[in-house]
Amino acid sequence: MTKPDDPHRVLIFDTTLRDGEQSPGISLNMTEKLEIAQQLARLGVDVIEAGFPISSPGDFEAVEAIARQVQGPIIAGLARTHTQDIDAAWNAVRDAERPRIHTFISTSDIHIQHQLQTTREDVKGQARAAVAHARAYVEDVEFSPMDATRADVDFTAEVVQIALDEGATTINIPDTVGYAMPQEYGAFLTRLYELVPGLRDVVVSVHCHDDLGLAVANSFAGVQAGARQVECAINGIGERAGNASLEELVMLLHTRHADLGLTTVVNTRELARTSRLVSRLTGYVVQPNKAVVGRNAFAHESGIHQDGVLKERTTYEIMDATTVGLAANSIVLGKHSGRHALQQALEDLGFRVSGQALNTAFKRFKEIADKKKQVTAMDLEALVTDELRDDLGAYTLEWFDVEASSRRPPHATVGVRTPEGTIVEGSFTGDGPVDAIFHAINAATGKDAKLREFHVDAVTSGQDALGEVSVVLELGGVPAAGQGVSTDIIEAGARAYVRALSNGVRRAALQTPDAPPAGVELTPTP
Amino acid sequence: MTKPDDPHRVLIFDTTLRDGEQSPGISLNMTEKLEIAQQLARLGVDVIEAGFPISSPGDFEAVEAIARQVQGPIIAGLARTHTQDIDAAWNAVRDAERPRIHTFISTSDIHIQHQLQTTREDVKGQARAAVAHARAYVEDVEFSPMDATRADVDFTAEVVQIALDEGATTINIPDTVGYAMPQEYGAFLTRLYELVPGLRDVVVSVHCHDDLGLAVANSFAGVQAGARQVECAINGIGERAGNASLEELVMLLHTRHADLGLTTVVNTRELARTSRLVSRLTGYVVQPNKAVVGRNAFAHESGIHQDGVLKERTTYEIMDATTVGLAANSIVLGKHSGRHALQQALEDLGFRVSGQALNTAFKRFKEIADKKKQVTAMDLEALVTDELRDDLGAYTLEWFDVEASSRRPPHATVGVRTPEGTIVEGSFTGDGPVDAIFHAINAATGKDAKLREFHVDAVTSGQDALGEVSVVLELGGVPAAGQGVSTDIIEAGARAYVRALSNGVRRAALQTPDAPPAGVELTPTP
Repeated sequence: MTKPDDPHRVLIFDTTLRDGEQSPGISLNMTEKLEIAQQLARLGVDVIEAGFPISSPGDFEAVEAIARQVQGPIIAGLARTHTQDIDAAWNAVRDAERPRIHTFISTSDIHIQHQLQTTREDVKGQARAAVAHARAYVEDVEFSPMDATRADVDFTAEVVQIALDEGATTINIPDTVGYAMPQEYGAFLTRLYELVPGLRDVVVSVHCHDDLGLAVANSFAGVQAGARQVECAINGIGERAGNASLEELVMLLHTRHADLGLTTVVNTRELARTSRLVSRLTGYVVQPNKAVVGRNAFAHESGIHQDGVLKERTTYEIMDATTVGLAANSIVLGKHSGRHALQQALEDLGFRVSGQALNTAFKRFKEIADKKKQVTAMDLEALVTDELRDDLGAYTLEWFDVEASSRRPPHATVGVRTPEGTIVEGSFTGDGPVDAIFHAINAATGKDAKLREFHVDAVTSGQDALGEVSVVLELGGVPAAGQGVSTDIIEAGARAYVRALSNGVRRAALQTPDAPPAGVELTPTP
Repeated sequence: MTKPDDPHRVLIFDTTLRDGEQSPGISLNMTEKLEIAQQLARLGVDVIEAGFPISSPGDFEAVEAIARQVQGPIIAGLARTHTQDIDAAWNAVRDAERPRIHTFISTSDIHIQHQLQTTREDVKGQARAAVAHARAYVEDVEFSPMDATRADVDFTAEVVQIALDEGATTINIPDTVGYAMPQEYGAFLTRLYELVPGLRDVVVSVHCHDDLGLAVANSFAGVQAGARQVECAINGIGERAGNASLEELVMLLHTRHADLGLTTVVNTRELARTSRLVSRLTGYVVQPNKAVVGRNAFAHESGIHQDGVLKERTTYEIMDATTVGLAANSIVLGKHSGRHALQQALEDLGFRVSGQALNTAFKRFKEIADKKKQVTAMDLEALVTDELRDDLGAYTLEWFDVEASSRRPPHATVGVRTPEGTIVEGSFTGDGPVDAIFHAINAATGKDAKLREFHVDAVTSGQDALGEVSVVLELGGVPAAGQGVSTDIIEAGARAYVRALSNGVRRAALQTPDAPPAGVELTPTP
């Protein structure tokens, strides 16, 4: 049912919220996941893999919310072959316009032996039952033979044939451990097409990991061998070295369209913004030299107007920065801009904000505009994203005082509003001002959180830039992340820490009685 | 002369200090370049392209110093086809054990027309003269037809034949704009071998850019077509989206050795450290999901002990973290460790430190050990690297006081020692504590520097982690970078800013009377 009529159409399956969100240290709350999903819809991806519903109640709720609220793309939920997984996936995605269940089981002997501790016969039986069970719920079912590239191709073909017999409409071939080389991966797909002629009637998909730096090249080799769905993630995030970068894959097909003839329906002008949003909310930086979305990916963005570029753009640029949405960084508001101008600017950026949310945004905007001469589109994005992070039932930073000096130890005092509405205070003398304020927050809230990661980036360049701080802390053995934005790095850090603490407390609450059996969350995935 | 007898041997040509150093915002001083070159020698690369000597006096001096002091690898200097370029390159590398001149000229019509504004005939003449002139100096001469992948293959073959006729010993085929696809690039090389049979007697080299995310895959396709030298850079830095990542390329050949049979002499255990050193000194972050050297590239490094990994490592890992040197991050020293223990630990890390340098290192070590319970190998690396940044004739931070609060604007006062040895003071009330201290430094030194980029990372995890701040500022239109390390983020930021200011002042001094004619530094390169 999902196979497009146009043989040149490549479907983009985004797994930022599933494989990407499984990366260590990433811990998105439901509002953040929804915001990313909305942006993915705006970007025009064909499928959003929204999560792995059985893995945790939080994941289930997020997939359900995305299925109910995000229009356009197919919404997929991941499931092992277990009945309870498929039931959970279906219950999470059932309200989507176009729901999909994606089920998987390993076909490599190394996984069957060591991970599943079972037999090839059992794997076939599980695959058959799972696809049949999923098809009883929904027409759109995807099946993945995990670790296929290290599996016996004949056995993998048998399992794929079973999935097809039971009605799977998409067959995905994962290079789970990022081991394949392009020619090898293409040859594996070609051989599967020979062994399973029925593959020509469904969508064949590729899912490649970047452990050897070949995820995009392998995905591309798969497409050249006939695959028409690519599983990828924004900024290439995902397990270990991550998945194929969506933006690289899309721009490869776009830039070389004249030679390849392949198309996607991605709106490339949304790529830069999507990249920034995902980087900001996950706390995963994009290196300056990252293809397509890195700060220096375009010569003229990096401030170097090379001789050649000045004479003729195409001498040194094969893509135009405006194509990926990098030129739109120009909406400028100042301190005299009013509420309506802000609302209009936010709407241009795709954020529909009104009522109390507009009031809050306007208040923050005015604070920033007092400090900065010009507020750019990127500043606004950061502010709106920042506001998304505050929600009910969380701790919030009320006030702080910090003294830092080379001549005495730094000291911090803070006031934090608790979820119950009271203001608690704490103070601490630490190794540095950030260390002091984080410990002061611990003292105020009575929590014993430990800092694991701390990261700062400037949103825009210049002396009065907004600083964006990402924090990962550990609370009772569970990691939790938070971000904060301000022109003041200490304030941004404290906001980030308080939010991470709120996330940690919320996470701990979710891990109680009706959480899934231990180990489910750690289940390896394609 | 440089062609190895073993047909399976792939030479690693590192261009971190040339193409990498041309990235915007990177501005390494000579000490830093030397330290990177020493580490590249320890890593075991075959060739270090140390710089582009004609481009600036600073570049010339750095290449000369590396040629004189770094043992092991061939030291190459880049040169356009102009006589003065080749003379400069030779004068810079002549003292190396094994010097190389690398000269280039574009063969694509788009470059010949718009960039060079000349004719194909002239390009042939320039290539002939340049290689001949370089060969008069040295036996080891590399020639690159720039933008070859967008050039007419027959014309490129003609120019390559001329270079061979004049005695070039390495022919490099650059994908200058990162436009090629793997099969296409491999086919281009195969066609060149057909047109120029003499290529079989020299080393053929690949130089690929990552604009479409294919630099490693294209380089690999080139190797499969017969190339035996790969030009790459640590962390994949370089113009725009950068070059092929050295670490990915090396680990691809290493991990798939059983299938490919290709070898390098790189000591893979030095990869992680080299990556950290380059990231630290350039201020270019490595994203967590970067293959091989990213923080999460290995499952067990990222803190996720997946079910499968516990049962059998190879179920989810194709490489072992110890192979790339990631396991060495063990605790080495505590606050009671003495001078000898520090010296020994530094020696284990490859830093030979004695006399005054050891005293300084020990003093910094004690300061840190007072604040941190355990000082790890990575902390020591950061400290030593930090010390490298201080040199004579620079500004240094003497003391500072900062107050930050949510209830009044942040205020900073600083004392800075000038190159002349006097201490100047300044104060400022700014938008944030970092903003305030940076402006206070401007006020103290009387400089009008403008902040362009500000970046913070934790060296190790934990509440008492060392913070590492990178700053890029602009002084009189020229960008300059600086880094600082401390457990106190404000102090690290102020150190970084003062160093960037020193670099900026030094740069400005170098840009005076006997600087090369305007435009030389902006010359596009392969």
